Amino acid sequence: MATAREPIDFYFDFLSSYGYFASLRIEALAARHGRAVRWHSMLLGVAVMKTMGLKPLLETPLKSDYVLTDTARYMRRHGLQLKRRLTDPFMDPRAAARGFYWVRRQRPGQEAAFARAGLHAYWVEGRDLGTPDAVAALAPVAGAEPAEMLEGIESDQARTDLRDAVAASLARGVFGSPFFIVDGEPFWGSDRLELLDEWLGAGGW
Amino acid sequence: MATAREPIDFYFDFLSSYGYFASLRIEALAARHGRAVRWHSMLLGVAVMKTMGLKPLLETPLKSDYVLTDTARYMRRHGLQLKRRLTDPFMDPRAAARGFYWVRRQRPGQEAAFARAGLHAYWVEGRDLGTPDAVAALAPVAGAEPAEMLEGIESDQARTDLRDAVAASLARGVFGSPFFIVDGEPFWGSDRLELLDEWLGAGGW
Repeated sequence: MATAREPIDFYFDFLSSYGYFASLRIEALAARHGRAVRWHSMLLGVAVMKTMGLKPLLETPLKSDYVLTDTARYMRRHGLQLKRRLTDPFMDPRAAARGFYWVRRQRPGQEAAFARAGLHAYWVEGRDLGTPDAVAALAPVAGAEPAEMLEGIESDQARTDLRDAVAASLARGVFGSPFFIVDGEPFWGSDRLELLDEWLGAGGW
Repeated sequence: MATAREPIDFYFDFLSSYGYFASLRIEALAARHGRAVRWHSMLLGVAVMKTMGLKPLLETPLKSDYVLTDTARYMRRHGLQLKRRLTDPFMDPRAAARGFYWVRRQRPGQEAAFARAGLHAYWVEGRDLGTPDAVAALAPVAGAEPAEMLEGIESDQARTDLRDAVAASLARGVFGSPFFIVDGEPFWGSDRLELLDEWLGAGGW
């Protein structure tokens, strides 16, 4: 039976390894509590660098070493193997993010499948998703044609949708990847999935 | 029977609410795994601001709101009541940190008790510990006289000890409060206490 409870808003950047890790667990976590997941592609470049005025993690002294250690530890524990290394140059994530919002508008309900495929291609297969062509190649997972999606990614509508979505995420206080909001309560970081789980189980405190 | 296993190195700043929260749990956690705790007073001002080039948490857009929400949530859950609010002006933490290293040198083995008393005074009672006098008033918990400790806090030895300790913490990659290192493995944040617990239970992975 369907539940009337609010979905979990899940924010991620295609560029974010921690966002990818969370994407593998959030649906099962939500399902345990009778919640759906509403996926949102965000841009760390806008949130962290422009709005917060911070450096990227791997350009931050001390923290960069920690993140590499912590990520390797997480991957060992969860049996993950990635072709992409965190120290590889980052792609421009905007084409993937515009692809996400094009799917949401044109194939509503398929955007999570598209996001999962994009994250898998980028992190597990190590594929470059920095160009509209590379992103459009994923169209079939959303039930679309690559040519149609390519046009969509380049459209003003997709640019506007991404800009609006990023602005909306900032307005809700989202600044990291992953970031979760449920019943108005924010949770930041893949290391807060357990807390989110306990929060939902307890009905808050 | 004593264990030969390495202690857990626990780093905190007297200024850090998350460091205070962790200080309440680290001894019990360590004891469950037959470990001792080695306490270290560090300075976020040196690690975060000077070395990493970041702003204080509460001066970082978006993150500041999150930290206030997250802290209030943590306190509700753990039944904590603090007279000090996170938005109160910070004290200069150097007198407390020098007091800590004076105790470690002059009353070895009492520095954790001193740290707990200082954190309690600052966070729970809302007392100012920004001056040597205020810090020296805690001397009895370490089995010392306030006058003797006051002199110690002002001494070159305490300044050197603090400077050396902060340099050593940076050399080990410590950049936050709380921060834990055990068997060479770093864990950052009060939200990693559960992970540290699981790591020790499993013997790593």
